[in-house]
Amino acid sequence: MFSKFFEPESVAIIGASKKPLKVGHELLKNVIEGGFTGKIYPINPAAEDILGLKSYSTILDVKEPVDLAVVVVPAQVVPSTIQQCGEKGTKAVVIISAGFSEIGNKSLEEEIVKIAKQFGVRIIGPNCTGIINTHSNLYATMESRVGKGDMAFVTQSGALGGAVLAWAMEKNIGFSKFASYGNACDIDESDLLNYLADDPQTKVITLYIEGVKNGRKFFKAASEAAEKKPLIAIKGGLSKAGARSVASHTGSLAGNEAVYRTVFRQAGIIEADGIEEMFDMGRALAYLEPMRGDKVAILTNSGGPAVLAADALERLGLKVPEPPREIIKELEFLSPVCSRKNPIDLTAEGSPENYAKAFNAIFSMEYYDAGLVIDVPIAWDARGAIETARLLTQAIKNVNKPTVTCWMSGHLVKEAVTVLEENKIPNYETPKRAAKALWALSRFKKRP
Amino acid sequence: MFSKFFEPESVAIIGASKKPLKVGHELLKNVIEGGFTGKIYPINPAAEDILGLKSYSTILDVKEPVDLAVVVVPAQVVPSTIQQCGEKGTKAVVIISAGFSEIGNKSLEEEIVKIAKQFGVRIIGPNCTGIINTHSNLYATMESRVGKGDMAFVTQSGALGGAVLAWAMEKNIGFSKFASYGNACDIDESDLLNYLADDPQTKVITLYIEGVKNGRKFFKAASEAAEKKPLIAIKGGLSKAGARSVASHTGSLAGNEAVYRTVFRQAGIIEADGIEEMFDMGRALAYLEPMRGDKVAILTNSGGPAVLAADALERLGLKVPEPPREIIKELEFLSPVCSRKNPIDLTAEGSPENYAKAFNAIFSMEYYDAGLVIDVPIAWDARGAIETARLLTQAIKNVNKPTVTCWMSGHLVKEAVTVLEENKIPNYETPKRAAKALWALSRFKKRP
Repeated sequence: MFSKFFEPESVAIIGASKKPLKVGHELLKNVIEGGFTGKIYPINPAAEDILGLKSYSTILDVKEPVDLAVVVVPAQVVPSTIQQCGEKGTKAVVIISAGFSEIGNKSLEEEIVKIAKQFGVRIIGPNCTGIINTHSNLYATMESRVGKGDMAFVTQSGALGGAVLAWAMEKNIGFSKFASYGNACDIDESDLLNYLADDPQTKVITLYIEGVKNGRKFFKAASEAAEKKPLIAIKGGLSKAGARSVASHTGSLAGNEAVYRTVFRQAGIIEADGIEEMFDMGRALAYLEPMRGDKVAILTNSGGPAVLAADALERLGLKVPEPPREIIKELEFLSPVCSRKNPIDLTAEGSPENYAKAFNAIFSMEYYDAGLVIDVPIAWDARGAIETARLLTQAIKNVNKPTVTCWMSGHLVKEAVTVLEENKIPNYETPKRAAKALWALSRFKKRP
Repeated sequence: MFSKFFEPESVAIIGASKKPLKVGHELLKNVIEGGFTGKIYPINPAAEDILGLKSYSTILDVKEPVDLAVVVVPAQVVPSTIQQCGEKGTKAVVIISAGFSEIGNKSLEEEIVKIAKQFGVRIIGPNCTGIINTHSNLYATMESRVGKGDMAFVTQSGALGGAVLAWAMEKNIGFSKFASYGNACDIDESDLLNYLADDPQTKVITLYIEGVKNGRKFFKAASEAAEKKPLIAIKGGLSKAGARSVASHTGSLAGNEAVYRTVFRQAGIIEADGIEEMFDMGRALAYLEPMRGDKVAILTNSGGPAVLAADALERLGLKVPEPPREIIKELEFLSPVCSRKNPIDLTAEGSPENYAKAFNAIFSMEYYDAGLVIDVPIAWDARGAIETARLLTQAIKNVNKPTVTCWMSGHLVKEAVTVLEENKIPNYETPKRAAKALWALSRFKKRP
C-alpha cells in the first residue's frame, strides 16, 4: 500500500494553481523541479495548463491511472475530492489542506475517513506538509527539497518538519523518506514505522511525536521497527507548558513523562534531546555498525579537545580505558613526547602517516569497540588535514570498527571533513557531540 | 601591566623568520596582516628584512622602546632572550616556545622565571599560542584572526584555543580578547581574570581550564570577576580518562569533580557543558541584560518548535506560565485560531505586524522576565521573515526585556537572522540552545 505513496508512477496535484506563492502552485513546482520522472497531473477546473503541464478539471478526467493524489483544496471541498479519488481508483491520498480536527472540526474529518473507507483509499494527513522520497525524486511537499540520504524523518508537527528540512539542507544532512502525518485521520506514526522498518533505503528512522492516539499500536510498531533498525525519537510536550501547547495545536494528549520514558526504553527507542542530537546520532547509526562493547579509544594530536571527549564519553557511561600492553607495544614507534595512554596523543607528531599507523596499532587486537579521532591542524598549514583524512579513511575501512571524528576547526578542515563524510565517517564539530554519537552506537540493540 | 600585553604601542617578534609556514614567519604575518598600527620589529640575527620590515639581530638593537615581545625561539635560547628583554626594558613577554615543564623540563622554566623577576618582566606562557586584542588589531598568535566582539576567551589548552577560534570564525562569533596561557610560569588564569574583569571591551569572560595551581587565588579572582560580569567556564579533565590526559599533557592535577562544582557554584561561575554551549550562553550574556525572574514568554507561529522550547525551558528550571488576564486581553486582536496561552501561537497569522503587536502585548505589563521568539517561515515565501525581524527588533528595543530568538530554518532565514544578530538579538538554531541561553541569563547574579 505504501508503495503507491512513496513510489508512485503518477501523481495528481488536486488544487494546483497558476499563481506563484499559492500552495497549489509551489507544491506542483516542487514535484516538477524535484525531478519526478512519472506522470504529473495538475487538477484545476479553471486552468488549461499550469507550469507547462496540461491541467484537468477533476481527477476523473485523467484517462491514465493515477497512483497518488496530493490534495490542497479548501477543507469543505475535501470530501467530494476524496470521493472522486475513490471513483478514479486512486488509493493513496495526501491531504495537505487544514481545517479539520486540529481546529475542532471533527465531523468533517470523520466524513472524509468514511468516504475513503468505502473505496479503500488510504490517507496521510490532513493538515500535513506532505511526503518526500528522495530516491525516486518525489517531493510531494512545499518544503525544502533536501538531498538523498539514509535517514527517514517522520514528524507529527508539519512546521517542525519544514524547519528541520531547511536546517538539514544547510548542513548537508540527507534523507531517504520524509513524512508529515498531521492529524493522522487514517495512516498514523505507527503505520509509517511499520513501512519504514522494511524500507531498504532507510537505515535509520527519526521521529518527532507529540501525542500518540493508540499507545498499544505504537509500542508494537516501535518495538518491531527498533528490532530491525535504529529508531531515534523526540517526544515533544513533556513539560507542563509543552503539554498545554500540544493540546492546543494538535488536540492530542501529551502524556506523562515517566510513562513515555518507560515506553521508549522498553521499545528500544533511542531518545534524542533535541533536533541537533537526533541527527547527530542518526548519521552515526546510518553510517556505522553498532558498538559491541563500551570501550572507546581516543586518538588525537591535541590535549584539550581529547580531554573534553573523554569527559563526555565517561559522563555518558562509556569507557576510555588505557590500552593493554600489547597495544602499547604496537604504539612504540611513537616518540616519547606522545602519550600512549588513552587518549593517545600524537602531539606535534600527528602526521597523516602517524595517524594511520597509530589507528592501526590501536585496533591491532580485539580490545577497543570504537574510535574517536580528533585532529586540530595548525592554523598556518592545515593542508595535512586532507591527507590525514585520506589515510585515516583507509585505515578505518581496513580495521572496520565504528569510528567517528571530531575535526572542529571550521574553515581549516572544511575539505578534510568532506573527505571523511564522503566516506561515511561522521564528523562532529565538538567533542561532546562526537561522544553522544558514539553513545547512540552503543545503545542500538541493547534492550534493558 | 596588562596594557603592555594587550595595548602595546610596539611589538617585537623574537625568532621572526623569512620562511613561510615557520611559526616565526606566520606569527609576524598575522601581526602585520591583522592591521596592528604600532611599530613591529622582527628580531632575527640572520635576516636583514622580513616581510618588508627591517629586521634586528637582538631586541637590544632596536633603538625605540618595545612594549611587547613575542618569543618563538627554541627553548634553550629563551633564557638569554628574556635576559635581553629585561635589559631592553620590555616588561611584557609572550613565550610561544614549548619544551618546558610540560615535557618535564622544570628547571629551564624556573630559570626564565628567575631572570624575568630580576627585571620585572612579566610572562604569558611558555608553551602557549599567543594573545589577541581585536579592538587594537593585535593578533600576536599564529591562530585564526577572529573578528571583534564582546567576549574574552582564556584557555589553558592552546590547541583547543586554536580549534575554537577557527570554529568561531566560521560562525561569526567575535571576541574582545583571547589569551592562551600555556604553562602559566608567571601570569596565570587568575591574573587574566583580574584583568578582564575590569576590561571595558569585555562584557563576558569565557574560560577553559584543566587544572588550577593556586586554588585560593583562583577562587578569589573568579568570584571577583563574576561579581562584575558573567564568567562562563568549562572544566576539562573531570573524568578518569580526562584527568589522566590532563596529567600527561599539562602536568597539572585535574582535581575532583564535586570539589570543582562547588567552587564554580560558590564563585558564581556559570558552568558550560561544552564549547557550543559556552558561546551560546556567552552571546546571550554579552548582548542582553540578565533576567530578573524566571518567567519566559514564548511567541511562535508554529507548534512543534514552541513545544520543544517549552520542554527545554522547564527542564532547566525556568517557568513558562500562562499569561495573566490583562495580557490575554491585550492579545484579543488575534483571531480565535491563535493560542493566547503560553506559548502564544500566531499560527498562519504570524505576519510581521502581528509578531510585533503580540510581542508588545506580552510585555504590556510587568509579568514576564524574558522572551523567546520562534519564526518558521513558509518555505515557498520566506521573505516575510526579514520584515518580521525588523519589526520585532524595534519591539524588543522598546520593551527592553531580554529576548532571544530561535529561527532555525537555515537558508530560509539567513538574511532575517543577520538583521537580528546585527541588532544584538542572539539567534539560536534549535529551541534547546535558545532555552539554555535564557537559562544563562537567569543564572547571572544569582548566587546560592
